[in-house]
Amino acid sequence: MVDVRPAVVAFGGGHGLSASLSALRRVTDRLTAVVTVADDGGSSGRLRHELGCLPPGDLRMALAALCGDDESGRTWADVLQYRFVSPGPLGDHAIGNLLIAGLWERLGDPVAGLDMVARLLGCTGRVLPMASVPLEIEAEVIGAAPERPDEISSVRGQARVAKTTGEVSSVRLIPTDPPASPEAVEAVLDADWVVLGPGSWFTSVIPHLLVPQLADAIEATTARRILVLNLEPAEETAGFSAAKHIELLADHAPKLRLDVVLADSAFASDDPHLVSWADSLGADLAVADLAARDGSPRHDPLRLASAYAEIMGV
Amino acid sequence: MVDVRPAVVAFGGGHGLSASLSALRRVTDRLTAVVTVADDGGSSGRLRHELGCLPPGDLRMALAALCGDDESGRTWADVLQYRFVSPGPLGDHAIGNLLIAGLWERLGDPVAGLDMVARLLGCTGRVLPMASVPLEIEAEVIGAAPERPDEISSVRGQARVAKTTGEVSSVRLIPTDPPASPEAVEAVLDADWVVLGPGSWFTSVIPHLLVPQLADAIEATTARRILVLNLEPAEETAGFSAAKHIELLADHAPKLRLDVVLADSAFASDDPHLVSWADSLGADLAVADLAARDGSPRHDPLRLASAYAEIMGV
Repeated sequence: MVDVRPAVVAFGGGHGLSASLSALRRVTDRLTAVVTVADDGGSSGRLRHELGCLPPGDLRMALAALCGDDESGRTWADVLQYRFVSPGPLGDHAIGNLLIAGLWERLGDPVAGLDMVARLLGCTGRVLPMASVPLEIEAEVIGAAPERPDEISSVRGQARVAKTTGEVSSVRLIPTDPPASPEAVEAVLDADWVVLGPGSWFTSVIPHLLVPQLADAIEATTARRILVLNLEPAEETAGFSAAKHIELLADHAPKLRLDVVLADSAFASDDPHLVSWADSLGADLAVADLAARDGSPRHDPLRLASAYAEIMGV
Repeated sequence: MVDVRPAVVAFGGGHGLSASLSALRRVTDRLTAVVTVADDGGSSGRLRHELGCLPPGDLRMALAALCGDDESGRTWADVLQYRFVSPGPLGDHAIGNLLIAGLWERLGDPVAGLDMVARLLGCTGRVLPMASVPLEIEAEVIGAAPERPDEISSVRGQARVAKTTGEVSSVRLIPTDPPASPEAVEAVLDADWVVLGPGSWFTSVIPHLLVPQLADAIEATTARRILVLNLEPAEETAGFSAAKHIELLADHAPKLRLDVVLADSAFASDDPHLVSWADSLGADLAVADLAARDGSPRHDPLRLASAYAEIMGV
């Protein structure tokens, strides 16, 4: 029997994408991660502002999630994830962020730099930025200022959007038509499966659909499309139901069609609109226990891998 | 015929050691570089002061000089040597310095971190710090202040000593009895050849002889000892003859015996005391054309390699 593993492209950013990659690497080694590049907080934000580079943090996390399953791969991933402890200018910089930013400065090519780190880590798969220029996220928020709960205002910057206590109604990218990473577009067109989410909905999942060339590729590809819902709403989607998450995604990508919506059984239960919202985008609803066994609000890699394997028939 | 290549330990720091390693790697692959750790200027000085770590710069240069002779080795070496261009806090930091400092922070073991970078670069040989703690150099200088040419004063800090316009008469380390790197001591005791210099005389060559355990090992080893003189005096030894360089070394290490003193023909010529100073330490004088063919004041790696090969009989 020939084992032909599916080619999978996973979209996201930050911890949600890491969880998805930790699961997908158990299902296939033909794996491409496409990562948001709008972060403007923390170590990534400081590097972006000092050097004018893409924010490296989410890319670094994705690379670490795909590191080789041996001592060298794990040690390097651990080192690149480590942050300097210092009251000085290096404090809180992840070593991997500095290395990636340095590779970019020296090589002048973000993808070449990421490929070098992937080789260093012995990664299963490839990590690409969603766009070749750093982006900003601007959100329309209702009640961003608690004292004016009905006022609609703009909140600019991923770090601020992710932490807003108001209700986000929509997001947009600045610039509005950024150049997609050509390698990402190609990977989507060559894929068997495309996976969106889980992750911060407005700042890690929806942004991919706002890069026109990526949205077009996701629409045009013959790959089947999976949307993975979060286990529960994050700060930026506080109070939103599972169905509402799908609705928000559809609002931002009116032409998007899906094949499968994968939801955790706890978040899916008692949501009367979930099946119909999935259906409205052409998707079957798949429900499974996906949460970590220790009760923490993150996906369990093995449970998620098992759900992916079942959906993909591998 | 069995090709048994000699085990060589090369002592130094900075550009002189790099030149020596670039030559020695053509002669043997059983190579250990032992590097000064007293630098307190530039990127290394800033990292040392911010993080309390060993100054990584000279170690990084030695690693780069030993990088694998293939595209991966050369590209990584080139990247690690690259310095950020920025008016901000990363400006002028060599990427390799940040990576090495980060590895040290994460692993808590300087030698383990250097060995990881050596594997990354595919190095021919190993690079070790001369001591396991950062050191300071303090020099006794005559006429450090140009307006008082006869006054003897102390100048503290490698960067200041290397640039002093006064005449350095001696140097000492602070602390005076630092722990040698045990791996360096072991390498010296197991070596066939030990090579001192070339390099900044007071700040890169003599300091090794001031670490008691290293000086003892250099004295006790059955290895033969080569001293490589500089092509010309540097700022800190301005006006000193070739013989005077040997005299200064002997002043700092009264028990030192040498087997060979290797000098460039231009610097050696017209120095009536050179043969007798070499002889007083037990050494034969070897003279060859060692300077770069373009006339720049640095050793030509092939000429130096050829001299090493002749001396070592390989």
